[in-house]
Amino acid sequence: MQSLQEKASQWSGVDPDDAFAIDGTNLFQKLGLPTFVNLSTNFYTRVYDDEEEWFRSIFANSKKEEAIQNQYEFFVQRMGGPPLYSQRKGHPALIARHRPFPVTRQAAERWLHHMQQALDSIPEIDDDSKTKMMNFFRHTAFFLVAGDELKNQNQRVPCKHSASKPAAA
Amino acid sequence: MQSLQEKASQWSGVDPDDAFAIDGTNLFQKLGLPTFVNLSTNFYTRVYDDEEEWFRSIFANSKKEEAIQNQYEFFVQRMGGPPLYSQRKGHPALIARHRPFPVTRQAAERWLHHMQQALDSIPEIDDDSKTKMMNFFRHTAFFLVAGDELKNQNQRVPCKHSASKPAAA
Repeated sequence: MQSLQEKASQWSGVDPDDAFAIDGTNLFQKLGLPTFVNLSTNFYTRVYDDEEEWFRSIFANSKKEEAIQNQYEFFVQRMGGPPLYSQRKGHPALIARHRPFPVTRQAAERWLHHMQQALDSIPEIDDDSKTKMMNFFRHTAFFLVAGDELKNQNQRVPCKHSASKPAAA
Repeated sequence: MQSLQEKASQWSGVDPDDAFAIDGTNLFQKLGLPTFVNLSTNFYTRVYDDEEEWFRSIFANSKKEEAIQNQYEFFVQRMGGPPLYSQRKGHPALIARHRPFPVTRQAAERWLHHMQQALDSIPEIDDDSKTKMMNFFRHTAFFLVAGDELKNQNQRVPCKHSASKPAAA
């Protein structure tokens, strides 16, 4: 059985070495907190204004300000800064926390489209950092698509179980 | 609805500030890689030899050497060292990766019992580090119990769905 990491690499086209090249530099020290806040604000402004209703609707039950904070706190923590996210919300538990959302391949691509545009809108982010971040994001997006499929796997099991229980009738 | 973090704190009795006090010191630099390898080896030797069959059986389909490596690589990464785990396996995705296992409160307590004994067996680990690590482990164990309950929530939904499909008969 393919691991989550193998699926993420195959589906994203990004090798783990490239995805985790973000660990070779301290991007938080290089870019600073305000840049991460700007990036997430720019990104979610695009998402919440998306002309594609199917994508926009994924976020309909989340508050924009909270989505922004969750995202930049996670990015800061993951890219060499203080563990802001875990101090406030605990382990990232990326797959589990994405359970409420349909993380399809199409949704991953749309997320990445907006993120590429957001990165391109922040002049403080140099090209090398941008490439490293996009590789990480692309690999992670498809890691979450792989995680989303676990959810579907699970859905098949319990029905067999309940079928083997004595019927209520 | 209580968040994962709130459940983890309430059930474990460990506040997030205490759980994530591991982030106030670099425990990897303080203790070094061999100490983490020794800790995980000692821990899993206890687990795989556990006299409690119900607990031992949770690990029956996992290779001991792999369990040891997964654990110390994650600890090293989480406690200030190089991201060994992510380079090899991707995001920790703690809850998703524990899906195959029944992470009950009883299992969490048994895991913590063995971990306390393992920590007490490694003289290189000073009392302050031990306290910080146990707070992190206790909070995390119950974070995973909270995550395990998501799995059960999910199990109720699909059977309704399949009930609404045309029956095969």
